[in-house]
Amino acid sequence: MTTLPPNPPAIILVRPQLGMNIGAVARAMLNFGLTDLRLVQPRDGWPNPEAGPSAAGADSVIESARVFGSLADAIADCTLTIGTAQTTRDMVRRVTSPAAAVAEMQALPGKAALLFGPERTGLVREDLLLCHAICTIPSNPDFGSLNLAQAVAVLGYAWVTGDTAPPPTWLVNHEGPAAQHELAGLIAAVATQLATNSFFNPAPGKTETARSMLHNVFTRPGFTGAEVQFLRGVVRHLVRPRGAERHAAPAAGGTSPDD
Amino acid sequence: MTTLPPNPPAIILVRPQLGMNIGAVARAMLNFGLTDLRLVQPRDGWPNPEAGPSAAGADSVIESARVFGSLADAIADCTLTIGTAQTTRDMVRRVTSPAAAVAEMQALPGKAALLFGPERTGLVREDLLLCHAICTIPSNPDFGSLNLAQAVAVLGYAWVTGDTAPPPTWLVNHEGPAAQHELAGLIAAVATQLATNSFFNPAPGKTETARSMLHNVFTRPGFTGAEVQFLRGVVRHLVRPRGAERHAAPAAGGTSPDD
Repeated sequence: MTTLPPNPPAIILVRPQLGMNIGAVARAMLNFGLTDLRLVQPRDGWPNPEAGPSAAGADSVIESARVFGSLADAIADCTLTIGTAQTTRDMVRRVTSPAAAVAEMQALPGKAALLFGPERTGLVREDLLLCHAICTIPSNPDFGSLNLAQAVAVLGYAWVTGDTAPPPTWLVNHEGPAAQHELAGLIAAVATQLATNSFFNPAPGKTETARSMLHNVFTRPGFTGAEVQFLRGVVRHLVRPRGAERHAAPAAGGTSPDD
Repeated sequence: MTTLPPNPPAIILVRPQLGMNIGAVARAMLNFGLTDLRLVQPRDGWPNPEAGPSAAGADSVIESARVFGSLADAIADCTLTIGTAQTTRDMVRRVTSPAAAVAEMQALPGKAALLFGPERTGLVREDLLLCHAICTIPSNPDFGSLNLAQAVAVLGYAWVTGDTAPPPTWLVNHEGPAAQHELAGLIAAVATQLATNSFFNPAPGKTETARSMLHNVFTRPGFTGAEVQFLRGVVRHLVRPRGAERHAAPAAGGTSPDD
């Protein structure tokens, strides 16, 4: 008799296209003891009557699925966010295997999120910027695009069999990463102050590149909640001295790294 | 870059029902470097136009799929046959995990077969009688029925990641089991002679039970080709002395184990 591991991750479908596939995902989830389904901007709305038949009895997962207007909202309570993708595009990210990702999630005291992209494109750069790591399912280099529900099934299988995986890689005394809403708050605070100080280069694409880098440098380290709070204090006190009134006017002379 | 293991097993769908699922299986197979698809009595015939769309580009697998009139024919050239099932019903069989099954297949010099049953019922007793082992995918005890293509995807994933599995369990100097057609020949020869000798009890169900036991006792040990040839000689010489003419009339006094 299989024993299902405790504290399963949320399964987050980002902009899923076909209701049939959402239902098939629900079935695969329940097959492996995963029940927390979250949908970000499902193309055809929600509920979707096409999901029911392919769920094949996993009605409880369908009925408790939650819809979010943005990926940031969907992962707000999660402390570890892992995106499934075949490549990391042009960003620096930790790449992990299903077994190693599961070991990491199972060692995590908080809630983990496993992200799956739209059927046609998979997760795009903007999605992956919010991820601590990329999980790549080993597959045929010449035919690597998995069906959405089959990818969920593979991760579900890895979840249930995770007790044989290598040990997790958290540092000693590392309590695990902060919840995403804390991290998002830090990044937003930094970005706001930078904008106030004319940090961002208005040339086409430059601002976007700089914002991506911001996300990258704050997301990749996996800061703890205490570290995020500390960094918010650091940022606040870079802007103005402790106890000082907020400055209404931006300081002159800010330079952008992509000038 | 993932390296695909050599000598992949045949994927055998026994009495598959939906063309869409056969296509989805083909896609999952090619995702993990499996290309030898065999269909036993597909319900809606073959080729099936519903398989194409869900194959999503795995046309080569669809086009090279072979159809067989019986499971025995489909596994005739295979030396190790593993059936996927959640339970072993009421027979004695080795039960293995996906990782262990893969390790066994990867250590095998001959061809292995992985069997998947019909969507509605899974493999039935008569199918499992032809298997050396049962592979059970660990899953939710309360919701354990996997979609056909998702089950194939899980085994495919296990196939590609098999290098981390525990070592195989073949005995020293064991060259691997005989091809199924050799084993089937032995069982048929024994059964024919037993029938000639009125071994089988004609009461309802008794003959069937005895034939099942025959399959069981000859299949489970994983006899090598040489052993099967040896046993054919044993059977032949139990019936009549070396060099003697075949007896036309059955010997009297045969007793059935289920009398």
